[in-house]
Amino acid sequence: MKTQEMIALRLKYESNLMDSIVPFWEKHSPDRKAGGYFTCLDRDGTVFDTDKFIWMQGREVWAFSRLYNWASQASMERRNKWLELAELGARFLRSNGRAGNGDWYFAVDRNGKPLVEPYNIFSDYFVTAGLAEFHRASGEKWALELALSSFSRIQERKARPKGIWTKQIAANRSLMAMGIPMMDAWMARELRGLVEPATLDALAMAAEGQVFGFHVDRDRKAVFERVASDGSHPESMDGRLLNPGHALEVLWFLLRQAADRSDQERIQEICEVMLWSASSGWDEQCGGFFYYRDFRGYPTEKLEADMKLWWVHAEALCAFLLAYKLTGSAEHLAWFERIDSYTFTHFPDPEFGEWYGYLDRGGEVALSLKGGKWKGFFHVPRTLMTCIDWLREMEKTDAR
Amino acid sequence: MKTQEMIALRLKYESNLMDSIVPFWEKHSPDRKAGGYFTCLDRDGTVFDTDKFIWMQGREVWAFSRLYNWASQASMERRNKWLELAELGARFLRSNGRAGNGDWYFAVDRNGKPLVEPYNIFSDYFVTAGLAEFHRASGEKWALELALSSFSRIQERKARPKGIWTKQIAANRSLMAMGIPMMDAWMARELRGLVEPATLDALAMAAEGQVFGFHVDRDRKAVFERVASDGSHPESMDGRLLNPGHALEVLWFLLRQAADRSDQERIQEICEVMLWSASSGWDEQCGGFFYYRDFRGYPTEKLEADMKLWWVHAEALCAFLLAYKLTGSAEHLAWFERIDSYTFTHFPDPEFGEWYGYLDRGGEVALSLKGGKWKGFFHVPRTLMTCIDWLREMEKTDAR
Repeated sequence: MKTQEMIALRLKYESNLMDSIVPFWEKHSPDRKAGGYFTCLDRDGTVFDTDKFIWMQGREVWAFSRLYNWASQASMERRNKWLELAELGARFLRSNGRAGNGDWYFAVDRNGKPLVEPYNIFSDYFVTAGLAEFHRASGEKWALELALSSFSRIQERKARPKGIWTKQIAANRSLMAMGIPMMDAWMARELRGLVEPATLDALAMAAEGQVFGFHVDRDRKAVFERVASDGSHPESMDGRLLNPGHALEVLWFLLRQAADRSDQERIQEICEVMLWSASSGWDEQCGGFFYYRDFRGYPTEKLEADMKLWWVHAEALCAFLLAYKLTGSAEHLAWFERIDSYTFTHFPDPEFGEWYGYLDRGGEVALSLKGGKWKGFFHVPRTLMTCIDWLREMEKTDAR
Repeated sequence: MKTQEMIALRLKYESNLMDSIVPFWEKHSPDRKAGGYFTCLDRDGTVFDTDKFIWMQGREVWAFSRLYNWASQASMERRNKWLELAELGARFLRSNGRAGNGDWYFAVDRNGKPLVEPYNIFSDYFVTAGLAEFHRASGEKWALELALSSFSRIQERKARPKGIWTKQIAANRSLMAMGIPMMDAWMARELRGLVEPATLDALAMAAEGQVFGFHVDRDRKAVFERVASDGSHPESMDGRLLNPGHALEVLWFLLRQAADRSDQERIQEICEVMLWSASSGWDEQCGGFFYYRDFRGYPTEKLEADMKLWWVHAEALCAFLLAYKLTGSAEHLAWFERIDSYTFTHFPDPEFGEWYGYLDRGGEVALSLKGGKWKGFFHVPRTLMTCIDWLREMEKTDAR
């Protein structure tokens, strides 16, 4: 990529972030009355549900805090509003998010009354990251303490993440999901400076070990979403499930940590695995990445398997831009450009701002929402901030 | 409808049932080695997963048993094979389906080892109906005993159907789902002759009372899938959810029981309510019924909301044919003809038999499977047998 192209790309991402994404959430999401955020926002920002999903609250605290911490370093204007908005969510979480045992509810109502039990450990991961980042932005000690105690609880819970709500009978078929090592890799990075390095290094390496020891299958050239504890892939819908977005997301987390320790061998390996996931996940007929595939091409149990989701494409952008930045590979650049082109012609809404979340296979908008139970202010700003940073670094070194 | 049209329609349904649907399941579904049925069948019948989902096992026992019991009465050839196939499933269920406390697992592996805990009461409903019908076909006492003990357990469990796996916090928002009264209405009919009439009448009337007292909203002209225990519809995604297929399914169960007691007022009421559900659920642009809608037109939380599902259309056929049979209403006949036309131009697969299950909004096949975790040998044969009976009765009376 020529320097001029990098600059143009960076300006496109900066504009999308600052003129479209951030204003949408600043305007429609804060609940000034009850605290926290509305995340169920229709195309034009209309709030269509006031329930508060703790995943989404934690993620939005993270994104506003990160935006605040990131802006100056990225030569952007730092706005106090972002810190205020981060605080709005952080305080709501502190007051309403936690069950008696210290775990985080899945959902509470507008005013904080719990609606869904804390069965989902990913609530805890996102709140931990959100409060840690908010602590960096605000210096608030309570936020750090809460983040650290949640981090401890995650370590206790993660061997059986659904606890008493577990329905799978592990004695007869034990499948490990890639979500846990993926989140551990992210967490290990997010908590730098707040938790002892040895703890975080161990977490990062365990995650990398699980992904490369179990989920990545070199013989089959695939990244399996679930894998038996003996490393096999049961011949079942679960055992054959491919989730290209998840694979690319975990791969860029691991690529970044391999780059941090200058592990060239691992960098090459990850870049190769990325190509498998991309080519088996891409829809050659209509463009875009499928949400789910079956390794053998059978139907999955997921009705939405053919849909094109915003976060899959956001994570794929990070994966291939970082791969290109580290290796200069033309093949990875070509993938990046293909994904960038699909993404920016399909997801952003020029009229009301933000990205659509859910397209049908053909690329038409299937759900008009900009935010909901599972889509909030997270993947898009994370991707844009991350890619802007990398593009700026690449411009400076002008290595290629 | 003219008599000649009724006959032509009946012959179409008979042919679809006997030449396409039944042979597909006879050929591809039996697991002669381990017992029970394979239900994960790709387009051509290839087994893509050997796990056994208890819903699907119970439903298939029901369908083969019913087919056997129904054939002679419907002037069709009764085949012993159907009884053998019903027994294959019934014996598998008896040996492998039940947890220690008498509840039915959600899933077991091919050989019957439990994989998913008995968290889902609908497993119990379908097994109960299946074993009761198998008892009628075979005279086997153990099948009746097992059906009756399961029926008792359902009554004990149904106030809190997910038991220890409940994640909703009912103290803060209690929503009743329409699935339970729907299944109770069906069960009350299915167990006639095996359980005391007073018990079944009470069950049927309680179901009717819940649906008309809570789910059917005359002011809003809608059938809500979930409703608060005070009859209100919370302004949330859950509270506004419409499920046109479910609504039409429960409505024809209730229409049949109203007809059984010659309750003309209720018949008229149900026929009116059907029209609300049909018109709000029909996709005027592409044809077919949506899977889910939001009462106010907001997005639902369901990614698959726009898809066109086989069972929705099968149940809608029963609803409108019975409404027309009972009332002679031209409006209901027009709906029936519209649904019949969409269904038979979109779902059946002339090449390999059976119906596709999952179409995208535009009517293209989204998942190639003929059977899976949620689609088995049930809705289609039930609809076809039921409609064939009604058409034959209509031909005889030649009332219209």
